[in-house]
Amino acid sequence: MKNNQFARLSVDHQTVLNELQRIHFLDDQVSQQATVADTYRLLLRKAFLKAKSGNDFNSKLKNYLAEPGTDLVTYLDAKKPLTPEVFYLVALQLLDFLVGVDYEINNPIAAMKKMQLPMVEAAGPWNKDQLLDAWYLLLTTHTKDGQTFLDQLTNQGYFAPFYHLPVSMKPLFFNGKAQAVFDTTKLIRDVVYVESSVDSDHDGKRDLLKVEIIRPMDTEKGLKVPALYTASPYNQGTNDEAGVAATHNVNVPLIEKQPNELSYPDIAFHEDESQLPDPRPVAGESKQATETFSREQSYTLNDYFLARGFAAVYSAGIGTLDSDGIQTCGDPQQTEATIDVIEWLNGKRRAFTNRTDNIAITAWWCNGSVAMTGRSYLGTLATAAATTGVEGLKTIISEAAISSWYDYYRSGGLMIAPDGFPGEDADVLAIETMSRMKAVADYELNIKAYFEEQMKQMAQDMARESGDYNTFWDARNYRKKIKDIKCDVLMIHGLNDWNVKPQQVEKLWQGLRDVPVTKKIILHQGQHIYINAFRSIDYTDMINLWISHELYGIENGAKELLPNVIVQDNVTPENWTAYPDWSDPEQPKTTYNLAEGELVMDKVGHKVLSFQDHLPDAVFNRYAAHNDQWEHEIKSEEKNELSENRLVFKSSPLDEDKIIDGNVAIHVKVAVNQPFGMLSFQLVDYGEAKRFNVSPSPIQGMDLGYRWREDRLREFTLAKFPTPFKMITKGHINLQNRANAWKTDELKPNQFYDVAIELQPTFHRLAAGHQLGLIIYATDFGMTVRGNQDLHYSFELESCHLDVPFK
Amino acid sequence: MKNNQFARLSVDHQTVLNELQRIHFLDDQVSQQATVADTYRLLLRKAFLKAKSGNDFNSKLKNYLAEPGTDLVTYLDAKKPLTPEVFYLVALQLLDFLVGVDYEINNPIAAMKKMQLPMVEAAGPWNKDQLLDAWYLLLTTHTKDGQTFLDQLTNQGYFAPFYHLPVSMKPLFFNGKAQAVFDTTKLIRDVVYVESSVDSDHDGKRDLLKVEIIRPMDTEKGLKVPALYTASPYNQGTNDEAGVAATHNVNVPLIEKQPNELSYPDIAFHEDESQLPDPRPVAGESKQATETFSREQSYTLNDYFLARGFAAVYSAGIGTLDSDGIQTCGDPQQTEATIDVIEWLNGKRRAFTNRTDNIAITAWWCNGSVAMTGRSYLGTLATAAATTGVEGLKTIISEAAISSWYDYYRSGGLMIAPDGFPGEDADVLAIETMSRMKAVADYELNIKAYFEEQMKQMAQDMARESGDYNTFWDARNYRKKIKDIKCDVLMIHGLNDWNVKPQQVEKLWQGLRDVPVTKKIILHQGQHIYINAFRSIDYTDMINLWISHELYGIENGAKELLPNVIVQDNVTPENWTAYPDWSDPEQPKTTYNLAEGELVMDKVGHKVLSFQDHLPDAVFNRYAAHNDQWEHEIKSEEKNELSENRLVFKSSPLDEDKIIDGNVAIHVKVAVNQPFGMLSFQLVDYGEAKRFNVSPSPIQGMDLGYRWREDRLREFTLAKFPTPFKMITKGHINLQNRANAWKTDELKPNQFYDVAIELQPTFHRLAAGHQLGLIIYATDFGMTVRGNQDLHYSFELESCHLDVPFK
Repeated sequence: MKNNQFARLSVDHQTVLNELQRIHFLDDQVSQQATVADTYRLLLRKAFLKAKSGNDFNSKLKNYLAEPGTDLVTYLDAKKPLTPEVFYLVALQLLDFLVGVDYEINNPIAAMKKMQLPMVEAAGPWNKDQLLDAWYLLLTTHTKDGQTFLDQLTNQGYFAPFYHLPVSMKPLFFNGKAQAVFDTTKLIRDVVYVESSVDSDHDGKRDLLKVEIIRPMDTEKGLKVPALYTASPYNQGTNDEAGVAATHNVNVPLIEKQPNELSYPDIAFHEDESQLPDPRPVAGESKQATETFSREQSYTLNDYFLARGFAAVYSAGIGTLDSDGIQTCGDPQQTEATIDVIEWLNGKRRAFTNRTDNIAITAWWCNGSVAMTGRSYLGTLATAAATTGVEGLKTIISEAAISSWYDYYRSGGLMIAPDGFPGEDADVLAIETMSRMKAVADYELNIKAYFEEQMKQMAQDMARESGDYNTFWDARNYRKKIKDIKCDVLMIHGLNDWNVKPQQVEKLWQGLRDVPVTKKIILHQGQHIYINAFRSIDYTDMINLWISHELYGIENGAKELLPNVIVQDNVTPENWTAYPDWSDPEQPKTTYNLAEGELVMDKVGHKVLSFQDHLPDAVFNRYAAHNDQWEHEIKSEEKNELSENRLVFKSSPLDEDKIIDGNVAIHVKVAVNQPFGMLSFQLVDYGEAKRFNVSPSPIQGMDLGYRWREDRLREFTLAKFPTPFKMITKGHINLQNRANAWKTDELKPNQFYDVAIELQPTFHRLAAGHQLGLIIYATDFGMTVRGNQDLHYSFELESCHLDVPFK
Repeated sequence: MKNNQFARLSVDHQTVLNELQRIHFLDDQVSQQATVADTYRLLLRKAFLKAKSGNDFNSKLKNYLAEPGTDLVTYLDAKKPLTPEVFYLVALQLLDFLVGVDYEINNPIAAMKKMQLPMVEAAGPWNKDQLLDAWYLLLTTHTKDGQTFLDQLTNQGYFAPFYHLPVSMKPLFFNGKAQAVFDTTKLIRDVVYVESSVDSDHDGKRDLLKVEIIRPMDTEKGLKVPALYTASPYNQGTNDEAGVAATHNVNVPLIEKQPNELSYPDIAFHEDESQLPDPRPVAGESKQATETFSREQSYTLNDYFLARGFAAVYSAGIGTLDSDGIQTCGDPQQTEATIDVIEWLNGKRRAFTNRTDNIAITAWWCNGSVAMTGRSYLGTLATAAATTGVEGLKTIISEAAISSWYDYYRSGGLMIAPDGFPGEDADVLAIETMSRMKAVADYELNIKAYFEEQMKQMAQDMARESGDYNTFWDARNYRKKIKDIKCDVLMIHGLNDWNVKPQQVEKLWQGLRDVPVTKKIILHQGQHIYINAFRSIDYTDMINLWISHELYGIENGAKELLPNVIVQDNVTPENWTAYPDWSDPEQPKTTYNLAEGELVMDKVGHKVLSFQDHLPDAVFNRYAAHNDQWEHEIKSEEKNELSENRLVFKSSPLDEDKIIDGNVAIHVKVAVNQPFGMLSFQLVDYGEAKRFNVSPSPIQGMDLGYRWREDRLREFTLAKFPTPFKMITKGHINLQNRANAWKTDELKPNQFYDVAIELQPTFHRLAAGHQLGLIIYATDFGMTVRGNQDLHYSFELESCHLDVPFK
């Protein structure tokens, strides 16, 4: 086990004393203790919350070993001096580490160092000040259970007596982070209806948006709190069966496209200037909501902060149950509606208590500061909102977010499905998230006809068959407005996310380089997951530090302390490293040439290699049914049914570890026997090794407060058995889109063309002894159309090369 | 979707009125309504808990469709008559069913019938009495979300106003089941230390057992509640790494055993008569516990009942953190310690407030009635407890429970691992659950030496190498005392559970036939899972009905209403059928003879077939690393590397569906080329079909009360793609244990012997057109030792047959 804490502040001794006092560890009784041993015992007494009597406490203390052969009661009774060895042997037990697994009894210090647990370095025996410093540090140190020791005490009720503090003393910060001094059994749940600035269902009325709010009871006593706002189209339910029914068939041929001379201005999207209906008249005002709810679809990160002095705000937006409008899958109206909620929170827009009475209600309990949170579509809307520069939005924490919908459903002039969802497209997602469908009367009587017509239009506009970037997609490209971003941006993305692919975040990262906001990024080894309950990294602490600063204005140095880039290593579990940058465009690239079966540094001679794309029906059907088998066999060097349907090139084994950092580029000279064609590429790490499991392993439940909600602690572990390879990254291109994604070129059969492509960006450690591999093929069973057509591709090797940005 | 509710009581109209009054749906205002429409609107008003104002309510009501083209507000305003069509169209919406998926707007009645949702049959228009009958029925009907409509309202806070009822009005029952009228934010959490009747660590003192109790606040006001007691050795944590380190190597040879003439009395276990230390003196008494806890390792079924007037009691027992003693893996001391907690709850045993002060504390809040709950080891201890006939234990709800530890780690004179845990054994489990290890000082200074010595002894006594049933295992066979069971027994088991195999429950079921207690069994299609959050069956309602009767003495007819046997069908999802019996010993069997490659009804001539067990090293290693591949290929008819290492026999395709109900028996005449050998058998369902996924699919979160804990709703669904076969059941035998599991016979190389074996019991529908298959082989990569020895097995087919209990 290895501890990686990026959000722990180092503070001076006076701050230690002040903060320990603030959370009642340091009080008159502690101050008055004459000996270090008695002081230590008193601190421990405060930490053993389950024991109500002194003897109960002693019983528990007797379970702890102070030194080999001596329990802690005996040790303290003997008034022996407190040494670092004793303190840290006990600390390891308090932090739930295991003898023989994590540490040895006779050398606790070595284990502390090995696990990267922080220590007071002063040699022993310690005086009282050193003990207090060490206790402070211990409180901020992660236990084996993935949270700080203070959080562990919090979950046992340490801060329950603080619930009754006057609001003037709330929120309470310790080590720069907000603490759980808010009673989660007394949270207030309101529903309001924000009057948006869109009329997406064209009924002549501005769309009302249902907003669910959870706020601490203390707001009723005058406390103003910031809002963690999660815009989630899934939040009011989804139409899964309707989504499945709308899913497109991917077993269709690739088609020949008519060449054109389009340039970007021809297809650029321009804002709709149509007139917005007038706002509703206000019939009255109220401070009290008249609608409530029992259980929101929550996000555990928000849950954690609900105990710490933040409100959580959920809105599903246009087209969802109890709101107006229709789902548009990422268009500007959806962005508008998303920020309308922020404008209300920030006092700049109206909301009503219900859909009929026009009684206005303000966010009087909110301090006007908002952060957006959420993963996938949720993070996408956070990104969209940020690009508007809306006031009040201080930061977004966007996890696995889309920055351009074209890159989600298309690529290089091809339909490219998000991994695991072949046949999904913008219309499918719109139908799936149109939860207004669940209100049967509202849907049938008011909106069904219009929505179905809009969906027909969308199916046409999104141009699934062509795969080209067009006006429809340009309207859904948030990156066009990166320069308008005014809030700080914290990005989190999985390097193995083939649903929302890494390019989505990398292009946002690149676009933000010159934008005068603070931006940070965390890249993990997961797929499309969230990482706020990972054992080896203090993700939640980082967010706490970040939003305590952003939303409460606490001067905790968050922007300086958190590294610009944190990357989880792909070879050694539990390794997270800080870097100044990712995918630096200035990073020089190493060029490999393509020889038969090889990636080489030397120039290669003339040679043409070919592969076919067609498969026998039975084989095709097997792969169509079992994408995982195809995924394995396309890379496998064992002879299999794809051996003739691809080209493999491998480097010689590496002498030392090398890190690929950013965009790998490929240039090929290719000919195909038809007037259309596509290419797919996979960059592969070849080498027998025990690799990370695809998904993190669940470890145990994790409390998010005292008798409050829970998350599940997880961690990436190595697979039990070695595997011969793993895909690093991939990319696809339509051979008729050699110039760009919107312009269609002619493709003459059997004529050689130069084609260049950048693969999805990555950060990958290629271990010494491993080989870099490149697979070139056409049909990607998990992502492209699967026409099983008679296509033959040929490559002039001397004009092919691979450019790799080794760090 | 298909609804299967077994726990819904049919009641007369007067009871409808009384019970609707009891839960405040029927009150003066409702009684006074003149029209059916107004009554209906008022009932709906009470069910729309989120809307605080009348207009909010109307807004919500407008979302519901009353008939094609008319929303519910418009319909009610028009004072139109209430027909079954209108009521059930609205009901389907209230129950969260989906238009176009579950029902069509123009025919709600057909959908109600198809989904097996209950209806008031009276033709419309309804009068007020009929409406109230229908409303009552609706409240007891399952929604699409896996709970009754009343439970759904409960989760939205329907019963929150009932929290303040006087204790004389609690608990509150509706339709025979306890309702959630207890405030879960005010639960009281106590720890006590029960003085047990064992001294398993031989320290001269009776072992103290830590017990965690959660009880309603109302107990402080005089309410006495029953206890749901879960004995879980995992409850205070596990030593996973130590368990892994202790795991045995399974790549070891099968050995030749010395023949013997043992009979059962030679190996029978007899109770230890050693003297128990004196009880502790009592130094005082208290009603108040002095130790508490923040979060127990809970079981969701208990959580559900904590809101409904039951206490939850958890104890990890001997050898666990904060208790005395050592882990013994199922020996009589563990059983004793398990029931000692019941004796305390029933007022017959002493507990103390802590480990040192000898202050006695009674379970004064308990009504003396106890049910035991839990799955796997937890259900096992419930079974063990039941066999003692301990007073106060009214029923056990044992899920996937072991009834004899020999059958868990051994079978037919062989070491047979629970599926998924090769190398595990009794000692490994004892080490893994010895959570006293986590109290470092206590473990190192007080118990480590003794425990390690005991583990050495256990490793010897359990006789892993021989695989025989001996005194060690006889001590751990709870079935010896089935006749002593005095409580009612509810058993739940997965027909695909190859961890705790179906024999464990079937032998208990058989043993209980003549025991004068009520016994019920539910067999599901899962592996080693629990089923208390399944959409298609009202499991939790059944338990509620059951324990409301067993623990509160409510005369709700639970014993008569619940079927003796409920079995989930393996072909059609969401089908649960009631049967009078399972595995009836009188069930006649159909005999198949073994011909080359075939199972036939006709007599077969003389023919010898053989297979070898040895595999090339590379193949062996692959299967050892990937048991799933072995599992597939041993049954596959495609040529593979196991084709010579097994025999396959298949029946002709079935003309019609047939159900195998109980124990399949096999008789073979076999010779082997060594003086030792083993046989494995798999009964296989051959036939291309979309079968159930191995694990149920998660659907959504499910509340267990109002703002209380949650479970996750699940359901078995059909796999996306067909598979050619599925194992029905299996069995193993050591050829030296032809007589029984304790007596070793001589095995002369190359001499033919008659060997008979019963496979694990099953209940399996073999669909028309499918074929019954039998695979005979030796090494079972997931379960047996894997010696990869040079073994050849031959069979005289004319003396081989298969006896199948078709229902």
